Amino acid sequence: MSHHPHFFLPGATKRMEALSDGVFAIAATLLVLEIKVPELEKGFTQKELLHEMGKILPSLIAFVFSFLNILVFWVNHDAINKVITRYDTKTTYLNLVFLLFISLIPFTTSFISRYHESLIAITCYGVVLFFCSAVAAVMYHHLAFRSNLFMQAVTMKSRKKIWKQVVTGSVFFAIAIACGLITVYITIFIYALTPISFMFLPQLDFDSAEEEKLKLQS
Amino acid sequence: MSHHPHFFLPGATKRMEALSDGVFAIAATLLVLEIKVPELEKGFTQKELLHEMGKILPSLIAFVFSFLNILVFWVNHDAINKVITRYDTKTTYLNLVFLLFISLIPFTTSFISRYHESLIAITCYGVVLFFCSAVAAVMYHHLAFRSNLFMQAVTMKSRKKIWKQVVTGSVFFAIAIACGLITVYITIFIYALTPISFMFLPQLDFDSAEEEKLKLQS
Amino acid sequence: MSHHPHFFLPGATKRMEALSDGVFAIAATLLVLEIKVPELEKGFTQKELLHEMGKILPSLIAFVFSFLNILVFWVNHDAINKVITRYDTKTTYLNLVFLLFISLIPFTTSFISRYHESLIAITCYGVVLFFCSAVAAVMYHHLAFRSNLFMQAVTMKSRKKIWKQVVTGSVFFAIAIACGLITVYITIFIYALTPISFMFLPQLDFDSAEEEKLKLQS
Amino acid sequence: MSHHPHFFLPGATKRMEALSDGVFAIAATLLVLEIKVPELEKGFTQKELLHEMGKILPSLIAFVFSFLNILVFWVNHDAINKVITRYDTKTTYLNLVFLLFISLIPFTTSFISRYHESLIAITCYGVVLFFCSAVAAVMYHHLAFRSNLFMQAVTMKSRKKIWKQVVTGSVFFAIAIACGLITVYITIFIYALTPISFMFLPQLDFDSAEEEKLKLQS
Repeated sequence: MSHHPHFFLPGATKRMEALSDGVFAIAATLLVLEIKVPELEKGFTQKELLHEMGKILPSLIAFVFSFLNILVFWVNHDAINKVITRYDTKTTYLNLVFLLFISLIPFTTSFISRYHESLIAITCYGVVLFFCSAVAAVMYHHLAFRSNLFMQAVTMKSRKKIWKQVVTGSVFFAIAIACGLITVYITIFIYALTPISFMFLPQLDFDSAEEEKLKLQS
Repeated sequence: MSHHPHFFLPGATKRMEALSDGVFAIAATLLVLEIKVPELEKGFTQKELLHEMGKILPSLIAFVFSFLNILVFWVNHDAINKVITRYDTKTTYLNLVFLLFISLIPFTTSFISRYHESLIAITCYGVVLFFCSAVAAVMYHHLAFRSNLFMQAVTMKSRKKIWKQVVTGSVFFAIAIACGLITVYITIFIYALTPISFMFLPQLDFDSAEEEKLKLQS
Repeated sequence: MSHHPHFFLPGATKRMEALSDGVFAIAATLLVLEIKVPELEKGFTQKELLHEMGKILPSLIAFVFSFLNILVFWVNHDAINKVITRYDTKTTYLNLVFLLFISLIPFTTSFISRYHESLIAITCYGVVLFFCSAVAAVMYHHLAFRSNLFMQAVTMKSRKKIWKQVVTGSVFFAIAIACGLITVYITIFIYALTPISFMFLPQLDFDSAEEEKLKLQS
Repeated sequence: MSHHPHFFLPGATKRMEALSDGVFAIAATLLVLEIKVPELEKGFTQKELLHEMGKILPSLIAFVFSFLNILVFWVNHDAINKVITRYDTKTTYLNLVFLLFISLIPFTTSFISRYHESLIAITCYGVVLFFCSAVAAVMYHHLAFRSNLFMQAVTMKSRKKIWKQVVTGSVFFAIAIACGLITVYITIFIYALTPISFMFLPQLDFDSAEEEKLKLQS
C-alpha cells in the first residue's frame, strides 16, 4: 500500500482513533479517583464535614483544570485526524508517545492536588503538559509538511497558520515552567491561559477545487 | 466545510460519540470501586460477615442509582446524536463540560455512600446531577433551535416537546436540592423519580416528506 | 422510524455496542486491581516473598475465572448483536440492566478473593452471574420471539436451539447457588463448567433464500 | 455464513477490535495508578520532597516500559487485524486469552515497581510478556497458515517473514527469563530490546494481481 501514498483508505485511521479516544477518556475519567471523600469519625457535625470538604477544593480545581486540558488536546487531535488519510510508522509511534504523556496527567494532577504550594509539583505538572504539546507539535510538523498524509485539499496557508499556534502553545508551557523560578503565580496563570488559547485554533481550510475532486471520487 | 451547514457528513459525529461513550462507560464502571469488601480478622463467623455486608447496602443502593442515572443520560445523549449532522465548536465544548459533570458522579456517589444521612452529601450529589441536566438542556436548546445541526426532517413540534421535558428534568433536580432544607426524604424521593421520568422521553419525529428526500440522497 | 420495523438501518446498534464494549472491557480490566502486590518490610528474603506470593493465588484464580466469564458473556452478546437490526426501548433498558450486573463482577470477584472459603461470598458471586444470564435470557427471548428486531433470515429453528441453551445457563447458576447449602465444592464445580458450556453455543443459522434477498438489498 | 469463508464482510472484525482497543487502552492507562504520590508530613522542605520523588523513579521507568510494551503489542495486533476478513471461534478465544495476559501487565508492573531488585518480580514480569507473545504467535500461526481468514492477496512470503519475527520475540522473552538464574541484568537488557525489535516488523505485502481484484470487488 505504501506505493499509493495519496490513496484514500476509509477507516485507515479508525483503530488508532479508537485507541486514542480510549486513552483520552480513561485519563480524563480516572482523574476523579484523586478526589478523596473526607474521612470523619462518627458523631461529626455538618460544620466539621463542610470544613473537611473545603480541603478537597484544590483537588477539585486540579480535576477541572486537568479534565479540560485533556479534552482540549482531544479536540485538536480530532481536528487533525479528520484531515489525514492514514498513519505511517513515524506518526504511529509519535502518537503513542503523545498518549504516554497524556496518561501521565492523572499522576501529576494527583501530585499537584496534594502539594499545591510546592514548586516541584507545579513544575512536574507543567513538564508533562509541555511534553504533550511538544510531541503533538513534532507530529503535526511531520504530518503537515514532511509527509503526504494530509488530504491534498488542505491549503498550505492554513497548515502554516496552525503550525504557528501549535508551536506557541509549547513555548508558553516552557515559559510558564521557567517563570516558576521567579514566582509560581505567573506559572499558574500561564497554565490556565494556554489551554484556552488552544480552544480557538483556526480551522484547516480546504482548497475548493481540490475539495470538488474529493467529492467526485467518493 | 462550514459553508455547507446542512451537508450530511456520515461519521462526522463519530469520534465525539466514541469519546462520550468512553467517559459514560468508565464513569459507570468505576462506581463499583466504591463498594468496598468488608475487612474482617481471621476467625470471623458467617454471621459477622453477613452483618458487615449489611453495612455496604448504602453503597450498593448508591451504585445502582448512579449507574442508572449515568445510563439514562447516555440513552438521551444517544437519541440526540442520532439526529444531528455534525458538531460545531459550541456544541463540542458544551458536550465536554457535560462529560466533566458526568465524570464527577463517581465522586459524589462515593460521598453519598459514606455520609448517606448528611444533608451536605445529598446536596452535592444533586448539584452534580443538576449541572449534568442543565448543561444538557443548554446543549439541546442550541442544537434544536439556534443552530442548523439537527437533521431538517426533525419536526419542530417534537423538538419543542422534548425541550419541555429536558427543562422539567433540570427544574426537578433544582427543586429536590431546595427541598433538602426542609427534609432530605423528599429530596431522595425526587432524585429517584427524575431519571425514571427521563426514561420515557417522547421520540423525535421525522417529517415524512423530508425523510423521503433524505433516503433518496443517501 | 418505528413504522418500518424491518428496515435495516446500518449502524443503528453501533453506539449501544460501543457502550457495552466499554463496560465489558473496563469490568474485565479493572479486575486486575484486585490482585494486590504483597507488602514486605525491608530485608525480606526471596523465600518470604515467594511465600507471600502464594497468598495471592486465590485472587489470581478469581481474576482468570471472572475475566473469562465476562468475555464469554461478551462473545454471546456480540453474536446476538450481529443479527439484530436495531434496539427498541425495552431491549435498550434490558441491556443497561445487564451491563449493571456485568459491572458488579469486579466487586464479587474482590469479595470471593478475600473470603474464598465463605459460603456468603461464593453465593454473592453466583447471584451476580445468575442475574447476568437471567437478564440476558429475558433480553434474548424478547429479541427472538416477541419483537421483530432479529433479521428475518434467522431461522426459527436456530432461535429455539439457542434459547434452550441460554435458559440452561441460568438454571445451572441457580442450581449451583442452591448446592452451596449442601457443599460449596459442587457450587464451584458448576460455576467453572457453566461458562465453558456457553462457549460453544450453536450459531444462529440463516435461511438461504432470505439471505439472498438481504444481499441484493445491500 | 460459514459456507463462504473468503467472503469479505466489512465490519466483521470491528467489535472484537473495539473490545481489544478498550482492554489495551485501559491496561495502558491504569498503569499510572501504580505511580504513588509521596506522602510527607506538614512542614516538609522542597529538598525532602525531591528526595521522596527520587524513590518513585523505578515506578516511572516501569510505567514507561510497560506502556510501550502494551502499545507495541497493539500496533502488531492492529497490523494483523487489517488483513483478516473475520474471526472464527478459535481466533476469538485465542484473542481473549491474549487480552487476559495483556490485562495482567498492570499487576506485574506494580510488582516490579515495588520489588525492582527481586528475581521473582522480574521473572513474573517476563512470564506475562512471554505468554502475551506466545499466545499472539499461536494466533498468528492459525490465521496465516491454518485458516483462510487472511485476505488472499497477502503473499505467503511476507506471512513467513513475519512468522519468524513473532517466534523470535517469544524465544527472546524465554531466554531473558532463563538468564535471570545467572544475572538479572541480562534479563532486563533483553526485556528492553525485545519490544524495540517488535517495533520494526516487516509489513505484510499484497500480491498486486490479487489486490486489483479486491479493489474491483469493493
